[in-house]
Amino acid sequence: MKCTFVEVAPESDFSVQNLPYGIYSTDSKPVPRVGVAIGSVVLDMHALATYGLFDKVEGLAAEQVFNQPQLNNFMGLGRPVWRQVRSILQNFLCNDDNTVRKRVGDVESVAVPLCNVHMHLPAQIGDYTDFYASREHATNVGMMFRGKDNALMPNWTHLPVGYHGRASSVVVSGTSLHRPNGQRRPDPNKPPVFGPSMRLDYELEMAFFVGPGNARGSPLSLEQAEERIFGLVLMNDWSARDIQAWEYVPLGPFLGKSFGTSISPWVVTMDALEPFRVAQPTQDPTPLPYLRGPSTAVLAGYDINLQVHIKPHNGEKFHLLTQSNLKHMYWSLRQQLVHHAINGCNMRPGDLCGTGTISGPNKESFGSMLELSWSGQTEISLDESGGITRKFIEDNDVIRLTGYCQADGFRVGFGECTGQILPAKDLAL
Amino acid sequence: MKCTFVEVAPESDFSVQNLPYGIYSTDSKPVPRVGVAIGSVVLDMHALATYGLFDKVEGLAAEQVFNQPQLNNFMGLGRPVWRQVRSILQNFLCNDDNTVRKRVGDVESVAVPLCNVHMHLPAQIGDYTDFYASREHATNVGMMFRGKDNALMPNWTHLPVGYHGRASSVVVSGTSLHRPNGQRRPDPNKPPVFGPSMRLDYELEMAFFVGPGNARGSPLSLEQAEERIFGLVLMNDWSARDIQAWEYVPLGPFLGKSFGTSISPWVVTMDALEPFRVAQPTQDPTPLPYLRGPSTAVLAGYDINLQVHIKPHNGEKFHLLTQSNLKHMYWSLRQQLVHHAINGCNMRPGDLCGTGTISGPNKESFGSMLELSWSGQTEISLDESGGITRKFIEDNDVIRLTGYCQADGFRVGFGECTGQILPAKDLAL
Repeated sequence: MKCTFVEVAPESDFSVQNLPYGIYSTDSKPVPRVGVAIGSVVLDMHALATYGLFDKVEGLAAEQVFNQPQLNNFMGLGRPVWRQVRSILQNFLCNDDNTVRKRVGDVESVAVPLCNVHMHLPAQIGDYTDFYASREHATNVGMMFRGKDNALMPNWTHLPVGYHGRASSVVVSGTSLHRPNGQRRPDPNKPPVFGPSMRLDYELEMAFFVGPGNARGSPLSLEQAEERIFGLVLMNDWSARDIQAWEYVPLGPFLGKSFGTSISPWVVTMDALEPFRVAQPTQDPTPLPYLRGPSTAVLAGYDINLQVHIKPHNGEKFHLLTQSNLKHMYWSLRQQLVHHAINGCNMRPGDLCGTGTISGPNKESFGSMLELSWSGQTEISLDESGGITRKFIEDNDVIRLTGYCQADGFRVGFGECTGQILPAKDLAL
Repeated sequence: MKCTFVEVAPESDFSVQNLPYGIYSTDSKPVPRVGVAIGSVVLDMHALATYGLFDKVEGLAAEQVFNQPQLNNFMGLGRPVWRQVRSILQNFLCNDDNTVRKRVGDVESVAVPLCNVHMHLPAQIGDYTDFYASREHATNVGMMFRGKDNALMPNWTHLPVGYHGRASSVVVSGTSLHRPNGQRRPDPNKPPVFGPSMRLDYELEMAFFVGPGNARGSPLSLEQAEERIFGLVLMNDWSARDIQAWEYVPLGPFLGKSFGTSISPWVVTMDALEPFRVAQPTQDPTPLPYLRGPSTAVLAGYDINLQVHIKPHNGEKFHLLTQSNLKHMYWSLRQQLVHHAINGCNMRPGDLCGTGTISGPNKESFGSMLELSWSGQTEISLDESGGITRKFIEDNDVIRLTGYCQADGFRVGFGECTGQILPAKDLAL
């Protein structure tokens, strides 16, 4: 399959096999609307709808749905609709004889260059949940806080541990965040103090957007969950480790996380990720039936290469911090969704579920500075000369997450999730 | 001040000093819209707006705001607007010579009987947070789980501990909930099992709705927070204790709570509660300055009588379970809001913040069955003969929360927050 509508470089994240969805605007058309990235342009889905490209898709009021400032409505339509639209788009992009394509004529009437668009949050996020699904990450953190013998809590191998996060402060890539102020207790023998976090960190995560969801009181099976996940984004779960350490007992992370969570703007659909399915790690003990499903043959993992780079305030270029892969994740995406709804909790289109930090088995694959500097005990060297080091994020550092699936001759990539940490605000409270 | 528009009994929750806001519909006008309760009727705020009652309120597009299916827009307008509307309504209700009142003429043109309305959620809840602000409750739970000497965690007296809850499953009073299924580990020496919760509980809470909120990155002072709280409702934070106990380490409550949270439909404004302000409990140690404010003279507590009743499936009438008061709460509402936003977390109009279980010093005031039965160790006797007992909630039991402030000759009450627990669904997973 080769795109003939626009040129797509082999190393482009946005191949015709990808077709991720996002919400964009331009200076000349400032109202946010639905776009699909291909090569170095964004397809205006509403414009394509007005040409009648999606007229034959049953259940899709394309001119309305693609003129929305969020993808919630499209996410709510379900996988059969998503698949038809994907197939129609691929035909449009690859087939010179496509009827609508002939009518459209030039690219300019339905697409704008990626470099000219402003990206917005892909959805109005009703609820945001974060899981803790990487065994390596949970073990690393557990070892630091509780020692090697008690690293994993007894529940961890029986269920995908998760918690509710803050939806209001999820922001799109490119948004800067101020270092948060808060309570922390650096000296356990003295009272807590107030001020800027001194242990600010990133967490390399991915997150899925829920599609049609479920009614309150009606859980999902694994097979149903498979059809209810719309797609994935990169996520940086910024974490103030000192605020978190002091506040989190016994009810979990709160202000150590809720100052901001960054996601990449392009949602890569599960259909685009199909060719990159792999077996998830062996689960021992065997999970309870509701998390297991009838078939063990399903490949529930995804082979997605993930990187984190830092552009230090005292440097000129980006340096690699983490190189990991989603395939390391112990609990699959569909297990996370099934578990979330098993008590009858209703999931809605546009709900966001993070995976938790995706660390792998080697130190290079640790997905946070907490792990890389082993809780600040060692310096992370950013350049070969060792002149630039970090234990945690410093003011004006930029953190960039990237990710892609590599096939023979094309990529299915996620673009980037980037954010800069600005100095803490001086509060006169 | 005496209402002359409709009769208000002295024991009515909805005196002219109250004027709570809610979202209602009727069989003949099924589109939800804004109402205010007075005596035994609901004022149609949109109808009053069309009569021009609120024309002089600056910044209020009354005909639009009161025609919405949620109060978010009104909540976002801020306290000066809320106060003007309150004053205008009181003048309308109490003054026979009121110009608009003369034009309105009969009650029927702007009000419907309470018994004829269906109530809906008062707001579209963007984020729901739950605090843990009662010292007695935190101590009781801590004693059960960690023993007397370690009952309160070290952070508890330094900050209002809180966590993010699930917004999608907040429901309005009158909604029935199925007993949740989930993982629990009744025998710590055996693997976990799956099935209906065997330790289903209520939690007596109140919750406040956020008004104008704050921009991301811009915390609130105590004085600002005072002006950003719209009003209060009763809240039953249903809890599956066995699911919670197994899942909550280390990231906090999740599926043990997210199957449903019930709130009362009428939001009592902070202005209506002004006469019932009392000193909050003495805070020792003295909180950090951002939680303390310049003045210690402010009365930051509220004297609100709270009750929980149960109608057991094997009984005919309601029996008292809990008799408590919001004044026992250690961390004030404004301290909760200030703490929530201190890291720059943005609060939005319609966000809901629960207080946590409001237990008092005596056993009669314990706000959950977990505390009343001391984790199921003793039976709670519901009738004098001891024939009906509970350790936790049984299928088809009804739980009802009520609350009111009592003044000389009138009440400012909250109505009720009621819900029935239906049997667990039989899952074929």
